[in-house]
Amino acid sequence: MDKFEERTIASETIFKGKVVKLQVDEVSLPDGKTSKREIIKHPGAVAVIPVTKDNKILFVEQYRKPLEKTLVEIPAGKLEPGEKPEITAKRELEEETGYTTNELTFLTSFYTSPGFADEIIHLYITKDLRLLEEEVAGDEDEFVDILELSLEEAEQLVKDQRIHDVKTAYAVLYLRLLESK
Amino acid sequence: MDKFEERTIASETIFKGKVVKLQVDEVSLPDGKTSKREIIKHPGAVAVIPVTKDNKILFVEQYRKPLEKTLVEIPAGKLEPGEKPEITAKRELEEETGYTTNELTFLTSFYTSPGFADEIIHLYITKDLRLLEEEVAGDEDEFVDILELSLEEAEQLVKDQRIHDVKTAYAVLYLRLLESK
Repeated sequence: MDKFEERTIASETIFKGKVVKLQVDEVSLPDGKTSKREIIKHPGAVAVIPVTKDNKILFVEQYRKPLEKTLVEIPAGKLEPGEKPEITAKRELEEETGYTTNELTFLTSFYTSPGFADEIIHLYITKDLRLLEEEVAGDEDEFVDILELSLEEAEQLVKDQRIHDVKTAYAVLYLRLLESK
Repeated sequence: MDKFEERTIASETIFKGKVVKLQVDEVSLPDGKTSKREIIKHPGAVAVIPVTKDNKILFVEQYRKPLEKTLVEIPAGKLEPGEKPEITAKRELEEETGYTTNELTFLTSFYTSPGFADEIIHLYITKDLRLLEEEVAGDEDEFVDILELSLEEAEQLVKDQRIHDVKTAYAVLYLRLLESK
């Protein structure tokens, strides 16, 4: 048991959507008092660092409604129920970049917003990209542009906060960590 | 205007809590079709890398109800309405570590979950820590332990996924990036 565990006294589901579920839990604190926790349940997601034969990384530029702006990100998408992360990763890569792969290597995983959400992202890399002959029909509501950058260029965008999405910024620095060994 | 901008047709507020607000927007897509977006509104947050005179980083171990487990994180907390991030950063540092500072340097900012939330985190560093004489009364419902690690030790925890929170993992790699120049 975790030392500071918060035991659930009651849990109320407020909303069940296509992406997120919202619940409010009443919890018992370590000192015996009670508090409320607003919790977003998320199915989890994958992200892929696609590296081309020329050692460039593929990024997608995508409009993000919550921010009302376009971000530079690595290909990513949420897990479907019961789906293996590798399958999701391959599909999202195909849909968003037009490339496929038979070789995905797991790098790491991380929680994005542990204060209020349970989202976990599984990060993969592939250096075995093959251009698909036919475009894959992706999510009907997803529109993206592709960007090809060297690791050095990507690092500069991280420093300039033009890569402003943490999974992408972290992926770039993680790749640098791997390459520096 | 962003090329792939999604114009809001209608917006329904589902929930207004103490931490998050949930709304569902109906949007008009670039191809003229419509879709729904589930959006979590968050006030934004700060995180601080506290570096001691011995060049160790202070981390907090905190139970995170959404994950039902304890994570190793840097001190962090959400912005109060109208509050300057530096003020939040100083207060969270004091409440969670018992140290204060007069010298916070802004490093970078990032979005944590742009697919469904607008949370942004502003990351600071301080190398000017002073132990408070009296404990600061923090959030009534927050219980933390302190951990002191060198940058090398922290990097190892990142690789082992024992630092599993992305703002913290990213902060460690960002600090390495700064120190390697």
